[in-house]
Amino acid sequence: MKIAVLGGDGYCGWATALYLSKQGHSVAIVDNFVRRLWDHELNAQTLTPIRPLSDRLRVWQAVSGKTIESFYGDVCDYEFLASTLRAFEPDAVVHFAEQRSAPYSMIDRSHAVFTQVNNVVGTLNLLFALREHRPDCHLVKLGTMGEYGTPNIDIEEGYITIEHNGRKDILPFPKQPGSFYHLSKVHDSHNIMFSCKIWGLRATDLNQGVVYGTMTDETAMDEALINRFDYDDVFGTVLNRFCIQAAIGQPLTVYGKGGQTRGFLDIRDTVRCIEIACENPAARGECRVYNQFTEQFSVRDLAKMTVAAGKKLGLNVEVDHLQDPRVEAEEHYYNAKHSKLIDLGLQPHLLSDSLLDSLMNIAIKYRDRADASLMLPQVNWREPRNDRRLQMSKTARNSLGASRVQNASELVEKNKKHSHR
Amino acid sequence: MKIAVLGGDGYCGWATALYLSKQGHSVAIVDNFVRRLWDHELNAQTLTPIRPLSDRLRVWQAVSGKTIESFYGDVCDYEFLASTLRAFEPDAVVHFAEQRSAPYSMIDRSHAVFTQVNNVVGTLNLLFALREHRPDCHLVKLGTMGEYGTPNIDIEEGYITIEHNGRKDILPFPKQPGSFYHLSKVHDSHNIMFSCKIWGLRATDLNQGVVYGTMTDETAMDEALINRFDYDDVFGTVLNRFCIQAAIGQPLTVYGKGGQTRGFLDIRDTVRCIEIACENPAARGECRVYNQFTEQFSVRDLAKMTVAAGKKLGLNVEVDHLQDPRVEAEEHYYNAKHSKLIDLGLQPHLLSDSLLDSLMNIAIKYRDRADASLMLPQVNWREPRNDRRLQMSKTARNSLGASRVQNASELVEKNKKHSHR
Repeated sequence: MKIAVLGGDGYCGWATALYLSKQGHSVAIVDNFVRRLWDHELNAQTLTPIRPLSDRLRVWQAVSGKTIESFYGDVCDYEFLASTLRAFEPDAVVHFAEQRSAPYSMIDRSHAVFTQVNNVVGTLNLLFALREHRPDCHLVKLGTMGEYGTPNIDIEEGYITIEHNGRKDILPFPKQPGSFYHLSKVHDSHNIMFSCKIWGLRATDLNQGVVYGTMTDETAMDEALINRFDYDDVFGTVLNRFCIQAAIGQPLTVYGKGGQTRGFLDIRDTVRCIEIACENPAARGECRVYNQFTEQFSVRDLAKMTVAAGKKLGLNVEVDHLQDPRVEAEEHYYNAKHSKLIDLGLQPHLLSDSLLDSLMNIAIKYRDRADASLMLPQVNWREPRNDRRLQMSKTARNSLGASRVQNASELVEKNKKHSHR
Repeated sequence: MKIAVLGGDGYCGWATALYLSKQGHSVAIVDNFVRRLWDHELNAQTLTPIRPLSDRLRVWQAVSGKTIESFYGDVCDYEFLASTLRAFEPDAVVHFAEQRSAPYSMIDRSHAVFTQVNNVVGTLNLLFALREHRPDCHLVKLGTMGEYGTPNIDIEEGYITIEHNGRKDILPFPKQPGSFYHLSKVHDSHNIMFSCKIWGLRATDLNQGVVYGTMTDETAMDEALINRFDYDDVFGTVLNRFCIQAAIGQPLTVYGKGGQTRGFLDIRDTVRCIEIACENPAARGECRVYNQFTEQFSVRDLAKMTVAAGKKLGLNVEVDHLQDPRVEAEEHYYNAKHSKLIDLGLQPHLLSDSLLDSLMNIAIKYRDRADASLMLPQVNWREPRNDRRLQMSKTARNSLGASRVQNASELVEKNKKHSHR
């Protein structure tokens, strides 16, 4: 099957591209490398030293014997996108090519507007390009569990049967997204649903949970294939950040009470879910929604598990409760359905102690690259910055409340002393 | 009360600005006149000869003794919008400043992208500007009943109580918008709801039905104050178009079976609804949704009423059923609640025969200005034009299927002959 992976140089995209290539699919990566640019803007970097895409693809060919094509450009550029579809002629397009950080979208007005325009226009372009050039191609679009928010009822997979005043209908599940980023995904979902209806496109909208882990069988084949491991307050996801905080002896930063409960999954399940979606395409005119996660945890649960895993490795891990910079319920009901991908054959990698160990071991292996100043939340939902387009420099970070943070090596030293007591 | 009317040079905006001014409010119009530009793009014009805003405001001052301030600029320009809010210091902002035509958004990819970016970014800018400069100001935002689509259950006003698997919550009413324009309004609604929640803004989202009529007490005070009366296939609304078709002896163009049912209201009720919303502001942090219409009709009902009204005026009105250029149910359940504005004091102007007569009389008065080539649908939901950014010229219109249309004077002649038989 010919599969184009839009955003294939990013965290989930890179792992997915390699996995699909390994499985024998013909894969193309479409990317404009803007994710790497944001590292410079935020003065942050992945814990793991990633290589340029051309190096990655060269090494992949050497170790696997498989070739991955690459197309350099922006999905917001319609001519580029359309010509790419015409040239590669994919059977499925996996669309990761969006700004995917909630805090990034909440920095200030410019970042909110950028996130919504970038994500919505990129997806609109893709819908129009598919209609014009590849109407039979299957769109596999990454959404997020965050589209649903935390309603006081069970979360279904995309649609819900509502009985009301004696009548009944199956309607899109009501959305209560919690950031301008999550809102952009809700906008996308509506645009996709509509385009399938009017043009007969086929789409699978994967509402993904929070992804953890960095290693997949493919990225482990060579150091040059290593994936991103983001831990900063803007692009880092919670469990990855906790592991690094544990590894460098910094307290885990739990926002508020930590009762915030979300769906989580191992990145090895992300790549398999994408394959399952591609191999079981939606029908013409169908817009399916699958909830893509394997287990629910509260932030407090994850902190406890990280403390326990740290203990086994001889690390003394503390937990800090910070004021929640987000506007969200800190304790709430949460029960989200996630059976459709299981029914299609997903066999989850659950977050056992051993997995947590291996995640922590990566964190420990690269901890000298960790920058402790990146881990305290500096973006506040209630108080976006006024619109001065500052670079998120270390100075700016410090002025935004990160002054308590010591640097990584000091913290590691301190922690060693702790352990010796 | 100081009220800024964004989009105050447009159809609903102009009537609203005059009405609020007449009621003694201090009014400012904010507009960039882009609606007038679209007339040139589409090679169309309002049936009624409207004057430039500066003339309108001069005459308004002469006949009413009231001054309306004006600010020229685009709400997508944040610096302009922010400085306008700082300068005028409104207590309420009425936001009509969006691209409001479903067919316009469906012309091609450029128009879809323009509509969503223009509407979403303008509203995002307004939300950020209110937060930064006028956090206590009440946002009165025009949404549309088209956000809901036509679900098989009763449509509530913005929110619905859902019982599911033994639990209950009040959630945003699920949306099924039917064009890229309607989608832009859904995106706005989600952005507004979120901003009220995180920043404590106050907002009223008015999901307006299809507006008909052109005269209000204020616009009738002087010919120079006359409002727009759009009848073309892109910006014209159905009842206004039917009246002109009747007046010039052209068959009424019913799309498909004509069972499409929607909420309608007289423009005199639009202006009163806005006043009611302004005088009863939402609380801090509240995002209220009111359904702003007074009666439900199917397109078929409206055609019948127009035929009957035409008969009373000696016109022989025929009805044509065209293939529906939109993707929508042509027969469906429809029952939308609309009691909240009534509860706050709205006294509806219902569409009686006499009102239809007066609307028809306007159409007859100006029928020599009518261009029959503008009334057949040329935008097709299923087949947007490929992206060649053509001007929607008369040539393009004809090539898009309007060849059957005769010009207005020929049709009027033909109709006269009919009447004499």
